[in-house]
Amino acid sequence: MRIDLNADCGESFGAWRLGDDAALLDVVTSANVACGFHAGDPTTLRETCAAAVAAGVAIGAQVGYADLRGFGRRSMDVPAADLTADVIYQIGALQAVARSVGGTVDYVKPHGALYNRIVADEAQAAAVVEGVLAAAPDLPVLGLPGSAFLRIAAERGLRTVREAFADRAYLPDGALVPRSREGSVLHDPDEIAARVLRMVGDGTVEAIDGSEVDLTPDSVCVHGDNPSAVAVARRLRTVLDGAGVAIARFAG
Amino acid sequence: MRIDLNADCGESFGAWRLGDDAALLDVVTSANVACGFHAGDPTTLRETCAAAVAAGVAIGAQVGYADLRGFGRRSMDVPAADLTADVIYQIGALQAVARSVGGTVDYVKPHGALYNRIVADEAQAAAVVEGVLAAAPDLPVLGLPGSAFLRIAAERGLRTVREAFADRAYLPDGALVPRSREGSVLHDPDEIAARVLRMVGDGTVEAIDGSEVDLTPDSVCVHGDNPSAVAVARRLRTVLDGAGVAIARFAG
Amino acid sequence: MRIDLNADCGESFGAWRLGDDAALLDVVTSANVACGFHAGDPTTLRETCAAAVAAGVAIGAQVGYADLRGFGRRSMDVPAADLTADVIYQIGALQAVARSVGGTVDYVKPHGALYNRIVADEAQAAAVVEGVLAAAPDLPVLGLPGSAFLRIAAERGLRTVREAFADRAYLPDGALVPRSREGSVLHDPDEIAARVLRMVGDGTVEAIDGSEVDLTPDSVCVHGDNPSAVAVARRLRTVLDGAGVAIARFAG
Amino acid sequence: MRIDLNADCGESFGAWRLGDDAALLDVVTSANVACGFHAGDPTTLRETCAAAVAAGVAIGAQVGYADLRGFGRRSMDVPAADLTADVIYQIGALQAVARSVGGTVDYVKPHGALYNRIVADEAQAAAVVEGVLAAAPDLPVLGLPGSAFLRIAAERGLRTVREAFADRAYLPDGALVPRSREGSVLHDPDEIAARVLRMVGDGTVEAIDGSEVDLTPDSVCVHGDNPSAVAVARRLRTVLDGAGVAIARFAG
Repeated sequence: MRIDLNADCGESFGAWRLGDDAALLDVVTSANVACGFHAGDPTTLRETCAAAVAAGVAIGAQVGYADLRGFGRRSMDVPAADLTADVIYQIGALQAVARSVGGTVDYVKPHGALYNRIVADEAQAAAVVEGVLAAAPDLPVLGLPGSAFLRIAAERGLRTVREAFADRAYLPDGALVPRSREGSVLHDPDEIAARVLRMVGDGTVEAIDGSEVDLTPDSVCVHGDNPSAVAVARRLRTVLDGAGVAIARFAG
Repeated sequence: MRIDLNADCGESFGAWRLGDDAALLDVVTSANVACGFHAGDPTTLRETCAAAVAAGVAIGAQVGYADLRGFGRRSMDVPAADLTADVIYQIGALQAVARSVGGTVDYVKPHGALYNRIVADEAQAAAVVEGVLAAAPDLPVLGLPGSAFLRIAAERGLRTVREAFADRAYLPDGALVPRSREGSVLHDPDEIAARVLRMVGDGTVEAIDGSEVDLTPDSVCVHGDNPSAVAVARRLRTVLDGAGVAIARFAG
Repeated sequence: MRIDLNADCGESFGAWRLGDDAALLDVVTSANVACGFHAGDPTTLRETCAAAVAAGVAIGAQVGYADLRGFGRRSMDVPAADLTADVIYQIGALQAVARSVGGTVDYVKPHGALYNRIVADEAQAAAVVEGVLAAAPDLPVLGLPGSAFLRIAAERGLRTVREAFADRAYLPDGALVPRSREGSVLHDPDEIAARVLRMVGDGTVEAIDGSEVDLTPDSVCVHGDNPSAVAVARRLRTVLDGAGVAIARFAG
Repeated sequence: MRIDLNADCGESFGAWRLGDDAALLDVVTSANVACGFHAGDPTTLRETCAAAVAAGVAIGAQVGYADLRGFGRRSMDVPAADLTADVIYQIGALQAVARSVGGTVDYVKPHGALYNRIVADEAQAAAVVEGVLAAAPDLPVLGLPGSAFLRIAAERGLRTVREAFADRAYLPDGALVPRSREGSVLHDPDEIAARVLRMVGDGTVEAIDGSEVDLTPDSVCVHGDNPSAVAVARRLRTVLDGAGVAIARFAG
């Protein structure tokens, strides 16, 4: 048994700090680094990439909507050509930043509202895929199993990586329970660790209605921007280690 | 005799159009493409790079201050580490955009207030040089002869390219007459062409006080953002062609 | 018979110019002035307000999504509290700008994607209404007849002003034909003028399927951001004048 | 003896939190509320103004450079007309936001690099004064004693309020020791309180070279964006209360 752990990093902006990147990089194997559109100024990105390199953690380009105010969490009707260009731009920017500190961008993961939208929105999903193909066709993409994004990415020849969420409740169809709904985010580190252990062992998770969802994830996301993220990630790592699960990056 | 002609391109932003890139790319051999900080959204950059590739024109990363409102023309006290990271980020972004349309970034040229500031500001000049070294150490940099920027770049091992301005008046020390001063910008295409021919032939230009300034430029800038830019550039090209000057890109 | 003519103004941003405000202000009676979120920097707004005051044209706060890159034309899932605060902020900013040149903000009109979204989106419509009530409850709001926005505004006690579009095709239910569809925008000044004359005279317009739509507009929008806007507006004014229609502002 | 205590508030932006506004508003009598250019989104500003109104604290418009990334701490060469328009825009925006929660803007205080620059820069100082005169000529302005800003403001008829800084070291001429210099910021709450008590009692402060500087402040700033701000402010208030100093707002 083997799994990758990923978390959002590099989400500070200018004078504003967010997340405990140093602590998270001690626990995870892949860092989803913001690319400046929804979070992350160039200095922050450079520091984050340097820390990821030092920690031996894979660097992912976390591409998002150009919406600092909304932290990329507000769905936007971005035309396909613009979205493709935005993805190319963000990947390239992070590639140079990573290179400047001896690292490489190892994968691509959409962020926030974009991630959620391309679960079903075929046009935006295809636009993101076009952007990855145009900028870095060798990079794997991280996404939700069953999403339009992973399906189109696979059709177009990209390597796809199946992601599960450690602290999020699931709907019976494998979608995430929206954050606006009660019970959408789990907080108990032990419960979260137990769920992930089952995801890794059986490939399943219990949905919010009690039904069983097939996930078979390659990587599990432990969120980076809530106060308990580090505690959850540490507990998860301990439980997985104890169960003999190899925790290893999927890329780079 | 041989010279490169460069112009600013890719300076539109969203719904706002600026400059006649298509016409300029027919005349110049190097395009200074905005990188999104002072102008140029990702879609514009992609279209501009595609047009440059089609025209056989070299692509330069025109890095600038993060100041859309001021079009990068307002000097800013950006700390060195931030400026270096900004330069890395912008170069990388344009590299991916250029790559996505079959091109490459062939050189780096600072824009506007940053260009002017690093004529004398050692700290910012060194910060820009660090950024180029970290992102793309093989790329030549375009700058003002005698500037701190070109001096530090050469000291740090970058290839430097000497630039002259076709339509700008010079001070006796080789600096540009500030735009705020009367007579700082020339408008007569024939006068401009005659001045450039002398720059290329003798390596000199007549300063605003009548004295002679040594320039020996490798590249001459014909500005992109004023209405007469295209007419000036065409006239210049005709005169240079007629005088047997080879017009050829210096890079890429 | 009496009608107001409105147009979008103040849509330049920094170095980028858009629209021919001076010409439009000679023709229309109400200027929808951008408030800096989708277009319009403070200097532009001040110049536009000064020109509107000089021309005796009413000033409307054209509130929009915070999306310069997309010119406010990309629908965004902005939470209600944020949208209300954005509307308050924009109205207040323009009020001070107008006051600084001897004018006042006389009405509020949502822009672009926000205008279209609150035709049906009750939550965003209510959020905009809350913003107007909180910032300037005495101001009338301009919107599409039959929209959720005008209905909620009326329910909450705001004065509502019914708007028609001179150069846009209509669906049978009174909605605008989306710009992405063939035939959505009319270009012939005479056809446009004839349609508007009928809107003002009979209160109706012929929809794209040939059916008749009831509009009874209080104000007709002649768009500001396309090249023919001025010609269309002038022709329209001439035809309305000739037909004895009084062209007068509805507010201020 | 009587003094006002002011602090920076409303400096969060979107998902990023900064400062402990709730705690500071319990201690100070005047809140310098960011206006969205260097910090503070409209929702944050509205919440901050509501909290200030609830706490009976005066609201100041803290106008700054349009530089989110640099938090308004990077000096910028903004032309006078643009700076004036920016000040008008920011004051108006905050006025509407304050009004929407039952408050008013009671004074104006420039922020960060702008505050420091207009100590000596006559052109920018005059531009800010023009902005206040155009938007809200009845409002007092807070600034450094001896600054060009306060001098020009007084010449133009604005009420000026002399500010001292609780936790900053002074140069012999009354200027602040730049943050880049060792010892520029004081941290010991008791030392800070003792210094302020002397400012209020004697009107003087000991400069970094041991000399005595005349200040006679009307308001003392306790900074809002460092972790110890609240502790320093509380200690200061206790000491001033104990010494019989009346702590009261100067405006509104």
